[in-house]
Amino acid sequence: MVALGGNAIKQAHEKGTTLEQFLNCKKTATLLAQVVKRMGPEDRLVITHGNGPQVGNLAVQQDMAKDAIPPQDLDILGAMTQGQIGYMLQQMLDNQLRDLGVRMPVVAVVNRVQVNRNDPEFQGENASKPVGNFLTEAEVKEIKKKHPEYIFKKVKPTGERCWRRVVPSPDPVANVEAEAIKRMVDAGIIVIASGGGGIPVVLDPDGHNRGVEAVIDKDLAGERLAEVVNADTFLILTDVERVKLNFGKPDERQISRMTIAEAKRYLKEGHFLAGSMGPKVKACIRFIEWGGKRAIISSLDKVTEALDGKTGTEIVKG
Amino acid sequence: MVALGGNAIKQAHEKGTTLEQFLNCKKTATLLAQVVKRMGPEDRLVITHGNGPQVGNLAVQQDMAKDAIPPQDLDILGAMTQGQIGYMLQQMLDNQLRDLGVRMPVVAVVNRVQVNRNDPEFQGENASKPVGNFLTEAEVKEIKKKHPEYIFKKVKPTGERCWRRVVPSPDPVANVEAEAIKRMVDAGIIVIASGGGGIPVVLDPDGHNRGVEAVIDKDLAGERLAEVVNADTFLILTDVERVKLNFGKPDERQISRMTIAEAKRYLKEGHFLAGSMGPKVKACIRFIEWGGKRAIISSLDKVTEALDGKTGTEIVKG
Repeated sequence: MVALGGNAIKQAHEKGTTLEQFLNCKKTATLLAQVVKRMGPEDRLVITHGNGPQVGNLAVQQDMAKDAIPPQDLDILGAMTQGQIGYMLQQMLDNQLRDLGVRMPVVAVVNRVQVNRNDPEFQGENASKPVGNFLTEAEVKEIKKKHPEYIFKKVKPTGERCWRRVVPSPDPVANVEAEAIKRMVDAGIIVIASGGGGIPVVLDPDGHNRGVEAVIDKDLAGERLAEVVNADTFLILTDVERVKLNFGKPDERQISRMTIAEAKRYLKEGHFLAGSMGPKVKACIRFIEWGGKRAIISSLDKVTEALDGKTGTEIVKG
Repeated sequence: MVALGGNAIKQAHEKGTTLEQFLNCKKTATLLAQVVKRMGPEDRLVITHGNGPQVGNLAVQQDMAKDAIPPQDLDILGAMTQGQIGYMLQQMLDNQLRDLGVRMPVVAVVNRVQVNRNDPEFQGENASKPVGNFLTEAEVKEIKKKHPEYIFKKVKPTGERCWRRVVPSPDPVANVEAEAIKRMVDAGIIVIASGGGGIPVVLDPDGHNRGVEAVIDKDLAGERLAEVVNADTFLILTDVERVKLNFGKPDERQISRMTIAEAKRYLKEGHFLAGSMGPKVKACIRFIEWGGKRAIISSLDKVTEALDGKTGTEIVKG
C-alpha cells in the first residue's frame, strides 16, 4: 500500500497545467513501475494519492463561473479529482508497465470513505481544513448570506484577503468500497483508490450513504485502505527522505526508526506539523497497531531504497 | 450491459445543480436496482453513461476562470466527469441495493477508450462534435491566436454567438481497461465504465497511450464494452420508448422490431439523427453483428418492460 504525496502529481511552484501534471505523474509512475517489477507473483500494489491543489483549483473555477454554472458540492469536486488524478496515474503507470513488459492491469476507482456525523470536526467552529480562495471580510459576508452554514476563519494575521472557508476534516471510519477493492486486488489488479482521502460520506439513519462537505486526510484514509486489502507494508511517500525531530531548529535530526511509543511522545511534544507530518506519523502508528508489518515514511524518489530498508523512517511496534 | 442516456443524470430543462443530478440518479438507480433484483446468481450488470451536459459545464467553468487557473485538456475533463457521474450513480445504486437487501458491490472505474489517429474525424475540418460555449467571431479569432489547431464551426445560421468549437468524434476501437473490467465483472462487481464514451486515447508508436482532444459517442463505446464483458443483452436507455420512422412527420410511426438489414436501410434513408438516434441504432447493429443476443433501445422508465420484451425497439439478426 503506497500513499503518494502532493509532489507526485504537482510541484508546489507549478501552476498545474495538464502537461505539468502528466510529467510529474510520469516520473512517479516510472518509480512505481520499478516497485511492480520487483514484486513476486503473490504480491499486490494498491495506490492512494492526495488532491489538495487539484480540488482547490476546481473550487476556484466553480466559484468564478458561479453566475453561469451551478457550483458542485465538495463531495462532487472530490469525485472529479479522483477521475482526474486517477486517469493521469493510471495512464502513466500502465505505459511504464508496458515498457517493462509487465502485464498487470491498473485501474482507478471512485471511492467513498465513511466518516462519523458526530466527529468533533463537525461540531461548531471546530472545522480545520481550509479550502478554496483567500477572501476579504466583505466577500465572507456575501457568501454567508447564501450559505449561512459555511465556516470561515482568519488564516493570515494581516492583509485584506486573510479569510478562508474551512471544512471539517473528520477521521476516516471505513472504506465503503472495501469489498469491491478486495476482490479487485485478489483478481491481480493494481488499484488506485481512496484518492484525496476518499469522497466523504456519512451513513444516514435510513441506511443510505450521503456525501458531506468535508475533506479527509489522505494518509489516514490510506491507512484504512491498507487494512481493507490486508497490506503488510504501508509506505507513505512525501518530499522528505526521513521524518525529522526539532524540524527547522538548530538541533534538527533525522529519525530512521521509532517505536509506536516514541512516535506518540513526539506527536504530543509537537514535533510534527498538524496538516503535514502529523497525520502521516499517526497513520503509521495505526497501521502497526492494527497488525501491519512495516510502516515507512520516505520520499518518492527513494521508494526502492525505502522498501529495501536503506532509508526512510520506519515506525515499529516496540 | 446498459447504456444510460443524458436524462438519467440531468433533465434538459435543469441547470445541473448537485441536488438535481443526485435526484435524477436516484430515480435511475431505483429502476436499475429492480433489474439487479431480478438477476440470477450468474447474471451480471455493467453500466455506461453519457456526460454531455457535465463536460460542457466543466469546460465553461474552466474557460471562465482561465486567467487564474490553467484550464485542463478535454481528456482530463472527461476523466473528471467519470468521477463525478460515477460517484452519483454508484452512491445512489448502492443505496437502493441496500434497501432491497442485495449485497453486490458497485464501482465506477476510470476508463480509457482507444481511437485511431487516422480516423476521418481527425482529418482537416471533419471534426463534428460541438463542445463548450457559443462564441462570437471575435472570440473565435482570439482563441485561434492561442490555439491555432482548434476548429470552429458556425452552428447557427444567425445571431452574434453562432460559433462553437468542434472536436473529433472518432469511432471507438478498443476499451483499454478491458482486462480489468472483465476480471471485476467475473468477481461479481457491478461496474460503471466507459463514462462519457470513455477517455479518448491514441496508441503512439512507442507503445504508450496518450490522451487526445476528442469526444467518443457513448453508445458506440458502450457497444465495445458490451463485447469486452461478453454481454448477451445490450440495452440503450434514452427518453423515447421506441425508435421512430419519419420522426416528426405526419406519417411518423414507432418500430418494435427491425432486422439489421432494415436498420441499415433506415439509417441510409436518414430516419435517425446523427448525434442522437443514429449512433444508438448503429451500436445495436454492431452488437448483433458481433454475436450479441439482444439489442434493445427503449426509455429509462420502461427498463423492466423492455427487458421483458413488452416495449422498446429490438434490433434482430434477420
